[in-house]
Amino acid sequence: MKKAQFGVVGLGVMGRNLALNVESRGYTVAVYNRTESKTKELLDGEGKGKSVLGAYSYETFVELLERPRRILLMVKAGPAVDAVIEDLKPFLDEGDILIDGGNSFFEDTERRTRALNKNGFLYLGAGVSGGEEGALKGPSIMPGGDRQAWESVKEILIASAAKASDGEACVDYMGPGGAGHYVKMVHNGIEYGDMQLIAEIYDLLHRGLGLTHQELGELFDEWNQDFLSSYLIEITADILKTDDPETGKPILDIIVDEAKQKGTGRWTSQNALDLGMPTHTINAAVVSRIISGMKEQRVEASQWLKGPLPTFKADKRGQFIEAAKHALFASKIISYAQGFGLLKAASDEYQYNLNLKSVAKIWRAGCIIRAELLDDIMAAYDRDPGLTNLLFDDYFREQVVRRQGAMRYVITTAVGMGIPVYALSAALGYFDSFRTARLPANLTQAQRDYFGAHTYRRLDKEGSFHTEWEA
Amino acid sequence: MKKAQFGVVGLGVMGRNLALNVESRGYTVAVYNRTESKTKELLDGEGKGKSVLGAYSYETFVELLERPRRILLMVKAGPAVDAVIEDLKPFLDEGDILIDGGNSFFEDTERRTRALNKNGFLYLGAGVSGGEEGALKGPSIMPGGDRQAWESVKEILIASAAKASDGEACVDYMGPGGAGHYVKMVHNGIEYGDMQLIAEIYDLLHRGLGLTHQELGELFDEWNQDFLSSYLIEITADILKTDDPETGKPILDIIVDEAKQKGTGRWTSQNALDLGMPTHTINAAVVSRIISGMKEQRVEASQWLKGPLPTFKADKRGQFIEAAKHALFASKIISYAQGFGLLKAASDEYQYNLNLKSVAKIWRAGCIIRAELLDDIMAAYDRDPGLTNLLFDDYFREQVVRRQGAMRYVITTAVGMGIPVYALSAALGYFDSFRTARLPANLTQAQRDYFGAHTYRRLDKEGSFHTEWEA
Repeated sequence: MKKAQFGVVGLGVMGRNLALNVESRGYTVAVYNRTESKTKELLDGEGKGKSVLGAYSYETFVELLERPRRILLMVKAGPAVDAVIEDLKPFLDEGDILIDGGNSFFEDTERRTRALNKNGFLYLGAGVSGGEEGALKGPSIMPGGDRQAWESVKEILIASAAKASDGEACVDYMGPGGAGHYVKMVHNGIEYGDMQLIAEIYDLLHRGLGLTHQELGELFDEWNQDFLSSYLIEITADILKTDDPETGKPILDIIVDEAKQKGTGRWTSQNALDLGMPTHTINAAVVSRIISGMKEQRVEASQWLKGPLPTFKADKRGQFIEAAKHALFASKIISYAQGFGLLKAASDEYQYNLNLKSVAKIWRAGCIIRAELLDDIMAAYDRDPGLTNLLFDDYFREQVVRRQGAMRYVITTAVGMGIPVYALSAALGYFDSFRTARLPANLTQAQRDYFGAHTYRRLDKEGSFHTEWEA
Repeated sequence: MKKAQFGVVGLGVMGRNLALNVESRGYTVAVYNRTESKTKELLDGEGKGKSVLGAYSYETFVELLERPRRILLMVKAGPAVDAVIEDLKPFLDEGDILIDGGNSFFEDTERRTRALNKNGFLYLGAGVSGGEEGALKGPSIMPGGDRQAWESVKEILIASAAKASDGEACVDYMGPGGAGHYVKMVHNGIEYGDMQLIAEIYDLLHRGLGLTHQELGELFDEWNQDFLSSYLIEITADILKTDDPETGKPILDIIVDEAKQKGTGRWTSQNALDLGMPTHTINAAVVSRIISGMKEQRVEASQWLKGPLPTFKADKRGQFIEAAKHALFASKIISYAQGFGLLKAASDEYQYNLNLKSVAKIWRAGCIIRAELLDDIMAAYDRDPGLTNLLFDDYFREQVVRRQGAMRYVITTAVGMGIPVYALSAALGYFDSFRTARLPANLTQAQRDYFGAHTYRRLDKEGSFHTEWEA
């Protein structure tokens, strides 16, 4: 019997689709799922007549694979990954490769890599982005861990990954240990930021300006033809134009406004704080989801905490809509500057030796944040691989500086209307802080020295100084 | 020889002052420090002629104390606390009490409490706020842990703590385990928020309106007479009026604008994310300190990222100054609503059973955030001990609602001037989100369902729903 070149454990929507994707590239794929029925479902359904081999025990699953075995784990991040590894280990041979394709926390991946290496196995932590459809047709894949393992699987991953417009596959070796999962975590953090910025613009134009969902759908379609062109803008247009079949109303009028947050977005904010990096926009996106979850309190508060009418009073609707588009783009660039800044800091801290150009490159297609913008980010790191901050790149600097007026106009208008624009404000807050040579943190340091004798530094000479503040 | 009723290990500025404070209330205090010279310094200096007994080994230190021994540890948070505990343990007897008065992470305190209880010892994790001066004259003390230990030390702590204007001591039993250190952590998070809000207002009035440091000092003195009355406003006025003796310039013109952040402020933000609680203003304060630390990049960026002139162009200086005062107060209230909201969530999550009235009560004097506002918060929790959010209290609702115009005016003006006001924006962002019954998170949920089949809930019926988005 012909052995399989690739194995997949876990046949949830992502695992199933990745198995079918790899098979479609000409490989034989072995599959295993804890619940047998899922395996059968795949073999009798979408996998029928294809080179998909099913197994109902780890032992037979492993026997179906050629050596070194290449096994992709698509199970829920957390203890389930450890459990599957423990179950598989007895049947593996030295040099076999496990690939964790879930959203594992990067520190868990570091730990698992060390443990498996001790047993002679190789490990890759590979972030996979693209959702259901991306998994099937070609996701963006961010593998990190043992380079030798990457060399062994790269042909398969390159064949299965999304292709950018220049034909390049959206997969590359990110770095050792947890580098792949770290990059995926930040990808998701950036995704949180993008989604919240879009949500705020939608809120302003719908609730503030009174544009209907249909009108907004057409507007987003239009925006998607220009510099904002991206998967998230595209699906937003689709969503805006979708009606609920049951009620005939726009589907957005039916969906509960409580967004879930957990895992990668929150981890990005928490890790950025650990590394002392400012990720204003991502943080704002995470807490905006959190506060959206307090629906009952919000409904109650809306009765008591009255503010201005959330409707646009000026006679410049066209001008505002245009400004919203530019404000969204500028904020997005600023948010990416924060995200890439975090990647750079993490690369130093964890010795990942990340290639930021390569990160931008593999985010150009397949993943949720794919956008034309990524081509420009790639170009910026091509011009200067050591770029400290995206905003120091001439192109991005110019894009943001000339759109700052739009940001200021949109935010001041929103503040006047009482419509929350916390992520937009976070982007501007970062921008205005970053471009300020002299911030009021001198007062903060003086206060800390006053009440806690924490000392301060002086502008005019080296050293630590303390003032006896009280007379 | 007369035994001591209280022991202090660690004679840094806080430990030394706390020892002297306790002694001044009529107790005999035994002291120990790893470096002998510090002990001698205290005995020969400020402790001379007082009931302070020095020891140069843990064994003799412990022998100086009456039983059950009550020993306050004032050592650097982290491994040093564990090390001192290990060194002391061999000399302790069952029922002896250790009190950690440092800024320990509350989870470490939980762990230490469990471990020491197994050995028959009692443990208190006690946050202490008040800085150098508070430690000596009366700090705010937030003890948590073994209630039996609290009963044994409370007479001493009550005698040594700050007294509020009604004569009540600023110390109370917060709850089991790490409750005391948790409350102190949030105190510090709130302190971060207060400090950043003040810094932004200072920046607007100094850089934007051109008020001199001297003028601002007088203004803050004035503000300190009114509803903003607080320790931080008071010391800000002092600082603003202080000149550098060397150069004769205002001291704030000399101090480097890079604020340190580490520990409690960051922990508050990270823990709030863990608990899924929105602490916009505290988070903004933490990242504002972080970005202040990127001085070199900021100076560079200031050359390239040009914005509007950071000067006030309107002819309404007086009006703006007045608005700034009200905006600061409203933002402060909103920040406290977030901080107390976090305490409430933590109380449920960790079963601390916190009494929020009592928290407000012991923050009224001694600590860094002491302010008249705390009396009103205490009153609010007196009116409704189960208050979900401070903004639901009639008094606070009214204070904020009528000042929101000032917040909006100050923020829009700052945005127009290009002066960063991220903490003020965070307060307004929270306020405007919290009082919005229908947020745009419906779009976020639709997007998540679109790309990841995450499902959404409907407004019109129960259950989880998924749309087949693509045609």
